[in-house]
Amino acid sequence: MNAAAPHPSSQPGGFSLAIDAMGGDNAPDAVLDGLELAAERHPAARFLLVGDEARLSGALARRPRAARICALRHAPDAIPGDMKPTAALRVRHSSMRVAIDAVAAGEAAGVVSAGNTGALMALAKIVIKTMPEISRPALAAIAPSARGDVVMLDLGANVQCDARNLIEFAVMGDAFARAVLGLPSPSLGLLNVGSEELKGDDRVRQAAEVLRDGHAGLNFQGFVEGHDIAAGTVDVIVTDGFTGNVALKTGEGALKLMRDLLKQVFTSSVPARMGYLLARPALDRLREWMDPRRYNGAILLGLNGVVVKSHGGTDATGFAHAVDVAMDMVTHRFTDRIKDGLSRLAAAPQPARQD
Amino acid sequence: MNAAAPHPSSQPGGFSLAIDAMGGDNAPDAVLDGLELAAERHPAARFLLVGDEARLSGALARRPRAARICALRHAPDAIPGDMKPTAALRVRHSSMRVAIDAVAAGEAAGVVSAGNTGALMALAKIVIKTMPEISRPALAAIAPSARGDVVMLDLGANVQCDARNLIEFAVMGDAFARAVLGLPSPSLGLLNVGSEELKGDDRVRQAAEVLRDGHAGLNFQGFVEGHDIAAGTVDVIVTDGFTGNVALKTGEGALKLMRDLLKQVFTSSVPARMGYLLARPALDRLREWMDPRRYNGAILLGLNGVVVKSHGGTDATGFAHAVDVAMDMVTHRFTDRIKDGLSRLAAAPQPARQD
Repeated sequence: MNAAAPHPSSQPGGFSLAIDAMGGDNAPDAVLDGLELAAERHPAARFLLVGDEARLSGALARRPRAARICALRHAPDAIPGDMKPTAALRVRHSSMRVAIDAVAAGEAAGVVSAGNTGALMALAKIVIKTMPEISRPALAAIAPSARGDVVMLDLGANVQCDARNLIEFAVMGDAFARAVLGLPSPSLGLLNVGSEELKGDDRVRQAAEVLRDGHAGLNFQGFVEGHDIAAGTVDVIVTDGFTGNVALKTGEGALKLMRDLLKQVFTSSVPARMGYLLARPALDRLREWMDPRRYNGAILLGLNGVVVKSHGGTDATGFAHAVDVAMDMVTHRFTDRIKDGLSRLAAAPQPARQD
Repeated sequence: MNAAAPHPSSQPGGFSLAIDAMGGDNAPDAVLDGLELAAERHPAARFLLVGDEARLSGALARRPRAARICALRHAPDAIPGDMKPTAALRVRHSSMRVAIDAVAAGEAAGVVSAGNTGALMALAKIVIKTMPEISRPALAAIAPSARGDVVMLDLGANVQCDARNLIEFAVMGDAFARAVLGLPSPSLGLLNVGSEELKGDDRVRQAAEVLRDGHAGLNFQGFVEGHDIAAGTVDVIVTDGFTGNVALKTGEGALKLMRDLLKQVFTSSVPARMGYLLARPALDRLREWMDPRRYNGAILLGLNGVVVKSHGGTDATGFAHAVDVAMDMVTHRFTDRIKDGLSRLAAAPQPARQD
């Protein structure tokens, strides 16, 4: 297996993305319907659709827009949602594996899968491989805030991180926000228990020291706290995988609680139902803005190719959003942007690695 | 300074609580108005009100209910909100210090202050002292969830924790939920990045192993994730101070964002305003349920006395709630409950301390 060429989509014959057609609770229908939507938004893209050829060829024929931009590749197996990553590594001809192989071989610039998260992370790390300058890949996502979308990482790829990891996450988060949110100079914050310089543990203080000195060319704003995520105080929230995973799920849980309670409010009485109808246009805009499908797609950053994980239970709209994120990363040469950031960082003083 | 007797409120002449009258943004008015409310709910309580006697005696005379249950003690100084804990320790006659001294001397069973958090934590640890069985005190709070109030700890007293600390937090959280939420057998969960036994770092896995074996007599439900906080999956969420601080503030931030957006929704058009009026009774119940003042009061657990920190910016209603929490802890002999839990735990196998 060769290391992936960074941008096969710009080469004749290359694919923009390889798509795992058999991953996720509603595969392959949600995947194919999602590609039908994505084809409208990315008419110049070319997708390598990987899965059970017999099932896919008929299904694709019924989706003419998707069919126009997709090429089929057969893979006889699928990785179940509950399979352990170590077991998934041994399935040589799964749709997920064959799609990832296409990235490693330089045929596709990235991969999108709604399948088993642990398997995708393990396969991507082993087959596509981590960029030589990066110690550990990180999982990132986009979340809504009062001041627009924010990027958050790591979300659980690394439950224990040292200062060097956090610095690399900052460089990757910066590159990601430039590529996907289109921000020329994204502001970054390091998640901590207080915003004063002396707060937190050695890890975050050491990372902040390096980020503050400006060598990395980042727009680093210092420490931020939990409430800064929803407030949108900065564009990129950097943290370790344990804290990031808990924070993301805590915020999602709080928003879900509010949605459920509002539903109760507006069905609690006849006047409340009428009130809902009157306020409905604005409430619908709010619901649309908060729609989890708009934020579908967790991104594994730091590999020699673009890897996007769609939520397993999402529908066509959600899957199409995950494809959008991957296409933004491919089109805006995300991998090159990380390399630029890391070469600037190389000039900065480095804290010792602790792992 | 003597170690505090556990329940001076039950002794003739003892005070239920010492109150720092000069702490917080709106002191002493918010404090005194809060005591006026608290006096209605706790007519048998006796409070030692500590602060500038000249200012307080006139103010107290204007609040007859509070005056009936309060005794005044003069303290000439007040600790500013931005003073460093190390500096605060040197102010011998601050209202906060004199109130804490009263707990350490066994005159009062607990203390409530809306003043400087860092100073309160430092003074309480040094003067009231940590229980001999506890390695480190923890900061706890009560938060709303879909299934009723939940207790969360640690919220930032300890940014680095080992397995032993987490186990002690579980014992303290159990005792707190029994005393303050009145639950006979509170369910406990350890916050992690996934609910499977193998998820997370060594720390949480080791702690879970001890909690699972049942010696501590706790109703331990295993690992929980961020979204379980708002869902109310368990009554007590146990975590380290870094993660807990970030999670609490993230959840608060998400709820605040929703409140702000709903305000925008209901002022966005004339029909939306009318819709608000129609749904108002149910929306008001929702707002009341989520009112941060109902959840005012962070509790420092593991000391030889009850220590409750009210939010510095709260009003009388919020301060009265902080007093309620402290009174529940005093009345239900919270400190004894911790000791019971720890003695049960002593029979269980212990992971080595890592600090």
